[in-house]
Amino acid sequence: MTLLAATTLAMVAMAGAAAAQDQRRDISRVAPEIVRKTVPPLAAYTDELLFADVWARPGLSPRDRSFVTVSALVAGGHAAQMRAHFMRALDNGVTPSELGETITHLAFYAGWPNAMSAVAVARDVFAERGIGGDAVAASAAAPLPVDGAQERARAASVDANVRPTTPALADYTDRVLFADLWLRPELAPRDRSLVTVAALIAGGKAEQLRFHLGRAMDAGMTRDEVAEAVTHLAFYTGWPNAMSAVPVLKAVFDDRPAAASQTD
Amino acid sequence: MTLLAATTLAMVAMAGAAAAQDQRRDISRVAPEIVRKTVPPLAAYTDELLFADVWARPGLSPRDRSFVTVSALVAGGHAAQMRAHFMRALDNGVTPSELGETITHLAFYAGWPNAMSAVAVARDVFAERGIGGDAVAASAAAPLPVDGAQERARAASVDANVRPTTPALADYTDRVLFADLWLRPELAPRDRSLVTVAALIAGGKAEQLRFHLGRAMDAGMTRDEVAEAVTHLAFYTGWPNAMSAVPVLKAVFDDRPAAASQTD
Amino acid sequence: MTLLAATTLAMVAMAGAAAAQDQRRDISRVAPEIVRKTVPPLAAYTDELLFADVWARPGLSPRDRSFVTVSALVAGGHAAQMRAHFMRALDNGVTPSELGETITHLAFYAGWPNAMSAVAVARDVFAERGIGGDAVAASAAAPLPVDGAQERARAASVDANVRPTTPALADYTDRVLFADLWLRPELAPRDRSLVTVAALIAGGKAEQLRFHLGRAMDAGMTRDEVAEAVTHLAFYTGWPNAMSAVPVLKAVFDDRPAAASQTD
Repeated sequence: MTLLAATTLAMVAMAGAAAAQDQRRDISRVAPEIVRKTVPPLAAYTDELLFADVWARPGLSPRDRSFVTVSALVAGGHAAQMRAHFMRALDNGVTPSELGETITHLAFYAGWPNAMSAVAVARDVFAERGIGGDAVAASAAAPLPVDGAQERARAASVDANVRPTTPALADYTDRVLFADLWLRPELAPRDRSLVTVAALIAGGKAEQLRFHLGRAMDAGMTRDEVAEAVTHLAFYTGWPNAMSAVPVLKAVFDDRPAAASQTD
Repeated sequence: MTLLAATTLAMVAMAGAAAAQDQRRDISRVAPEIVRKTVPPLAAYTDELLFADVWARPGLSPRDRSFVTVSALVAGGHAAQMRAHFMRALDNGVTPSELGETITHLAFYAGWPNAMSAVAVARDVFAERGIGGDAVAASAAAPLPVDGAQERARAASVDANVRPTTPALADYTDRVLFADLWLRPELAPRDRSLVTVAALIAGGKAEQLRFHLGRAMDAGMTRDEVAEAVTHLAFYTGWPNAMSAVPVLKAVFDDRPAAASQTD
Repeated sequence: MTLLAATTLAMVAMAGAAAAQDQRRDISRVAPEIVRKTVPPLAAYTDELLFADVWARPGLSPRDRSFVTVSALVAGGHAAQMRAHFMRALDNGVTPSELGETITHLAFYAGWPNAMSAVAVARDVFAERGIGGDAVAASAAAPLPVDGAQERARAASVDANVRPTTPALADYTDRVLFADLWLRPELAPRDRSLVTVAALIAGGKAEQLRFHLGRAMDAGMTRDEVAEAVTHLAFYTGWPNAMSAVPVLKAVFDDRPAAASQTD
């Protein structure tokens, strides 16, 4: 990017952050001035459709929408948009520790480089908000309990499908991902699943989506919340990725007893 | 990226823009000097293969090649290359309003973050060219007419495959995408389809490609133009994405009466 | 990205480079200080898991791990992480010419924009190390010999599956990729295949992976090396892309006589 473009992006980001803080006063003007002057129709869609309509929909909480948006940005490497949305996430009730844990989780599910780029932005946001020390430190709480039956089924699948071909990958999957990362108390299992599902959809990874959608619903996400998250992601990762997720949602919904999932 | 790298990228972009303006005089030196000094073989491929050969092929107009290239850059988040190619697009006959509308369209087909990053570059390019005001304003023209039969088939497919699982996504698809965005007169339907097809191929989204290739050909694109666009995309989004598109092209070509498509 | 973020990324990159140089002295502190202060758990995983464990595994040489990492970074457009890893690649025995050739190769397999962004970083790294001139010049050596049977089978597949639909793409594939790029002596065929396989996995392109895995093993990669490369990529491109590669590995391994591949 040119230095001029970098300056402009900085202005976009600052304008975005300012707009975010004004949001509760004037929801109708979220798009930065330079969007309004350069591509007016996109500014109109941003204000009237994305913020006044999509973000305001009742089917998914603002905190959940922030988890979904942040995950899509980190998984997609969209550093220019992270600042405003990390701020918004904190405003929407995501704690600094949860934001850091989301980034840590995405190191594994979207790759180390995307996580490292997100850290640089998080550091600026935390500095500006005076956040540090205990607020970002690892929890002293005990690891979360394991769901034995779920974990045995998962490990059996890895033993059958991964270990014979790539034994080290199977080992890290069992030992680091599921006996460590997923048990960290810094993020509730439901939120961790939401982050994972959002990253998978943003990355166009339908193959792993079925397993993680099921896990998300086991952890308490409802059909309506899942459908709303996919709708939200249509805007943040593009219609094609959202549309590709729909048949996987259908398969997972069809597999689960309706009564149980509707009373979740 | 380091500040040094940012400076270098700025130099690349400036050199690229200068080279683009020189292009009609000296097509053989498009690659910036730093490419020539750092990775000489890549500079040679850039000059002799990509610009002197691929861009000069008669099967697709320079304006169409710019739509394809810009769409691949925006969909892939390649901000560092946008400046030179936005300039080139304007030189090749894409109007500022069409460029802005391409970015707006890609907000929906490649996600808001990619579109917003493109706006920042477009703003610099427009400023440098003295473009603004009416040249980028939304059109006062009436929405484009709807093709009733095509639209009923599309809506029926959404009703069958999307609405039962994700009703809000189906609603936005019908109401915002196809009853609004696709009818905007700022971009001809054929060009909008070309932008969509390029973004889908750049994003590796074969699932939605078949529908949009059919739509592109309904709107007037010929087999030769579609094949040439895919060939062009091999260079801008990599061979694997282009190769994955080929069986979808074959299926769409096989489905359509040859005579009709050849006289398009 | 904001200027603040750019400054921070510069600091991350510089800290990363410094850490890399200290690595042989103190492997346990690779994560930059800002990661340790902002997202402490990610710093711990970076030091204890990624560098002290994964990079140190004996199944794949550090030079091969650098090829894999660099390819994932270039194919994913991760400019912020390239500097430290280009330095590390040079430290691990990748020559400047091999690094340039990797970037050139990835222009074709991950698209020109990703390659061009990598050139800007390579230029800074080369400048800092005093690398230039002959060290990056194209080789005067003759093109590598063609494996006639392998090449005839490949060309026949392109004739059957690509040429009827996209003749120009078939032509460039035969003439530029396989009669030119793949025969360039700047990169050994095995290393070129490793770069290609890493880029395909990083880009989530399972379709082309089977062909290129077979080619990599024909060129001398063992099952263990391939499995280890996929495990390494789980960290640099995320678990989902690595997991999607596993069934393709299995299919390729199953297809090949075990004895032959184990004595490779």
